[in-house]
Amino acid sequence: MLHPWYVTGLVEGEGSFVVSFNKRPKLRVGIETRPSFSLSLSERDLDLLKAMQNFFQCGAIRYSRSDRTYKYEVRSVADLARRIVPHFEKYPLAGAKGEDFRKFAEIVRWVHANHHLNPDYLRKIIELAYSMNPSGQRRYAKDDLLRLLGEMKG
Amino acid sequence: MLHPWYVTGLVEGEGSFVVSFNKRPKLRVGIETRPSFSLSLSERDLDLLKAMQNFFQCGAIRYSRSDRTYKYEVRSVADLARRIVPHFEKYPLAGAKGEDFRKFAEIVRWVHANHHLNPDYLRKIIELAYSMNPSGQRRYAKDDLLRLLGEMKG
Repeated sequence: MLHPWYVTGLVEGEGSFVVSFNKRPKLRVGIETRPSFSLSLSERDLDLLKAMQNFFQCGAIRYSRSDRTYKYEVRSVADLARRIVPHFEKYPLAGAKGEDFRKFAEIVRWVHANHHLNPDYLRKIIELAYSMNPSGQRRYAKDDLLRLLGEMKG
Repeated sequence: MLHPWYVTGLVEGEGSFVVSFNKRPKLRVGIETRPSFSLSLSERDLDLLKAMQNFFQCGAIRYSRSDRTYKYEVRSVADLARRIVPHFEKYPLAGAKGEDFRKFAEIVRWVHANHHLNPDYLRKIIELAYSMNPSGQRRYAKDDLLRLLGEMKG
């Protein structure tokens, strides 16, 4: 059984809080909001990822053949809101990742309350998400999403 | 102040236990043994490295311009033996790095007792060190060091 502070320390180094977006013409706002929490480790640490999954009691583990790592990932908004976010509020990240987490937690709360289906909230979510994870790659430019959102509202 | 289990978790992901060797013709055994513990983080986490240094009450922080990271490193054998090794024996690593650590701790104890100046012990140290950190790069091939050691003994 992992100690909760150990979990926070491991996530400080190797964890990732990301909010990504997909274009979904069938949605009224035209854009799907997808928050996720993940942790990637080399294949020799599969047991450790299983212990993380057991600790949080949610999420899935998948193998990435390209970089020979296993990734533990939680995408369920209910699990993020009820299990992931509360852990890192009780045992906070001490480094720069803590700032990412605080933005992530705000977005998860909004999405859990279905605010992401409201164009004004979604605009705030997009702005906040694009201010996270400076080194991450994005499928869409922020302005592209905001323009699409403007079109959907009209 | 960092929680000791948080420190172990962060090191599980980002820390490194390494034993390297240098050829030193002036030493009787011809080879210098250098154990070190280090942790590299991006420049936005310099404060966190300072908190680690404060936690362990030893070691130094240096900037690596090539990859824009800061590295916290402990090389003093006395500090490794009295501050670093005891921490990870009390708050053990849960993943594959724990196996590296156990070998590292054994070598640090031998070096701290000056056994690395004895050719038979040094042979065991070299064998153990080269079974650590499978992905690491080495300046010398193991057989090269063992051959040199054989010549010095003769």
